[in-house]
Amino acid sequence: MGGTLGYDIPALPGMAEADIVTPCLILDLDALERNIRRLGEEVRRLGVRHRAHGKMHKSIDVLKLQEALGGACGVCCQKVSEAEAFARAGARDILISNQVVGDTKLERLAALPRFGARIAVCVDDAMNVADLSAAAVAAETDLDVLVEIECGAGRCGVGSPDAAIALAQAIIASPGLRFEGLQAYNGAMQHIEDEAARAERADAVIETVRRYLAALEAEGLTCRTVTGGGTGSWRREAASGVYTEVQCGSYAFMDAHYGRVLCDEWETALFVLTSVMSVARPGQAVVDAGHKAHAVDSGPPRVHDRQDLDYVGWSDEHGIVADPDRTLRLGDRLRLVPGHCDPTCNLHDCYVGLRGGTVESVWPVTARGKLF
Amino acid sequence: MGGTLGYDIPALPGMAEADIVTPCLILDLDALERNIRRLGEEVRRLGVRHRAHGKMHKSIDVLKLQEALGGACGVCCQKVSEAEAFARAGARDILISNQVVGDTKLERLAALPRFGARIAVCVDDAMNVADLSAAAVAAETDLDVLVEIECGAGRCGVGSPDAAIALAQAIIASPGLRFEGLQAYNGAMQHIEDEAARAERADAVIETVRRYLAALEAEGLTCRTVTGGGTGSWRREAASGVYTEVQCGSYAFMDAHYGRVLCDEWETALFVLTSVMSVARPGQAVVDAGHKAHAVDSGPPRVHDRQDLDYVGWSDEHGIVADPDRTLRLGDRLRLVPGHCDPTCNLHDCYVGLRGGTVESVWPVTARGKLF
Repeated sequence: MGGTLGYDIPALPGMAEADIVTPCLILDLDALERNIRRLGEEVRRLGVRHRAHGKMHKSIDVLKLQEALGGACGVCCQKVSEAEAFARAGARDILISNQVVGDTKLERLAALPRFGARIAVCVDDAMNVADLSAAAVAAETDLDVLVEIECGAGRCGVGSPDAAIALAQAIIASPGLRFEGLQAYNGAMQHIEDEAARAERADAVIETVRRYLAALEAEGLTCRTVTGGGTGSWRREAASGVYTEVQCGSYAFMDAHYGRVLCDEWETALFVLTSVMSVARPGQAVVDAGHKAHAVDSGPPRVHDRQDLDYVGWSDEHGIVADPDRTLRLGDRLRLVPGHCDPTCNLHDCYVGLRGGTVESVWPVTARGKLF
Repeated sequence: MGGTLGYDIPALPGMAEADIVTPCLILDLDALERNIRRLGEEVRRLGVRHRAHGKMHKSIDVLKLQEALGGACGVCCQKVSEAEAFARAGARDILISNQVVGDTKLERLAALPRFGARIAVCVDDAMNVADLSAAAVAAETDLDVLVEIECGAGRCGVGSPDAAIALAQAIIASPGLRFEGLQAYNGAMQHIEDEAARAERADAVIETVRRYLAALEAEGLTCRTVTGGGTGSWRREAASGVYTEVQCGSYAFMDAHYGRVLCDEWETALFVLTSVMSVARPGQAVVDAGHKAHAVDSGPPRVHDRQDLDYVGWSDEHGIVADPDRTLRLGDRLRLVPGHCDPTCNLHDCYVGLRGGTVESVWPVTARGKLF
């Protein structure tokens, strides 16, 4: 990745961690690779596929690692422009785990198979099926289509097996579309801190899926794919016998919130590196990473490896670190574990990959800001 | 601004609002220009300068309007890379209203005057003064330096007049640096909803500044510039007789939070345009703008011109709009007024400027993501 140090990019390969320009995203490559290998092995053992959630990292380089080291079968993401960024960068099996609505977006979606990629998308509305078909016909391409079912998160997805049957039949009857199966993801439950309560919710989701599958099969409708599950719940979906693939994303990087939920089951591989920019006020240091450098929707970041320090306040470009023992000096570096990895990664243009204290790689955030 | 519709950019000039690809930032250009003209007139009447806060919009095009229509004397911003983005785009009077720490950043800062721009920066630490001087000497440039004083926000800035005097003297004694005056900005008070309480805090800030100025003058140290004040407080700083310039930013665009604080004193010019992507669940619509499309650090967005609708929930790529009367259909457009404009603008690559329902301009967010 090219660019000017301190303007476009925060580091160059070969540089020491102490010379990286802050604030920026750093990856502990050893930890990242261990997380990726371990999930790959566990998923394989359970006999399902792992479709890496690209909405989290938005990086073709991380996806390539997930495919090479973790055996991921492809990527899922949430937006057409995000899928296009992955397709342009070489991804060849892409599921948009979301609805796509609007003429321009449908046109771009229908053009994506021309990159040589298999493209799948979700629906929960009959009019949307008709629009998808018209776009695929106009583009002379084929799209795989999954019916999204509402399984407890109260967001998108059809609300009854009858509605799912009607949509599946509409997909089958529509030129340019292939009925692939079900999308059944409950995002809200991933974040329940109590493990037993989280497992109970996951089991309820699995029961819902089982009910839909039975209804579809009674109508002769076979699902090749049932996909869903995230870092907080995937073992239950993977072992359920009804899911064929799981969509874990955060396990690879982790964040402060998931660290609490999962009791640090996965290694923290993602950090926001920050520098002290003011020590004028006794007992606190001001660092150069505020909420334009890390997302605060799931709470504040944790200061890594420093039990004595607390990140207690933030504004757009500043973070306040309580330092009661006055240990910090101007220019000192801290690693922050962001509260929520997905929207944090989306704030940055690149990842600085570190191994043994030295910069090994500078990767672009391939699909950063791809909102459409 | 070039690019591919629906991938890089959401609109092309001449397009109707209904054809814009969502989610994206739109600007009501008439409202924006009225806000800019009005602030310019009021500031001029009070006999001070307006230095437009570029950290809010990060746009050279908006800055040019603020200079041309509102008589702004230049721009302030928070980061060196942000200042560099403005300098590269043609800004010629730039204050970094913040500390700059770290070798690479100091080197880039010291090179900025070569763009033909006057560059000023803030300090609150003697070691930082020495580093700034060394960087300016090495680059053979001159930097204007302001001493930041802590005036109630508890963030950066020296804590006593004696410390300010010592820093001012250090600046004067340092080759490559010129002592310019004081930065005195209380960010926290801008957002106090009670008007009388906000005014009281602003007056306390002004009294603090007066005390520092008297102490500096007693040592023969003259401040050419005293700068600070924001959209929530600027009238008091401007009328104080001690401030020479105010740094309003949000007044130009406004947001849901400032709308409450200032009782809609300024017109809302910035919106996040969003589309309905799912109506599968009765009584709600899911829209395509979650918190990757608008910042939620200051609360949720407001749905513009629709008293019957409430934006009640969000995740990364989804927003939940309560629609009890089931008025919304797939593909319908809504204008959201984001909770906080600054970090919202930083999430997008461009602004779509609308006049009379037609796209007039597509402007880049010049300094988007410039975090260093």
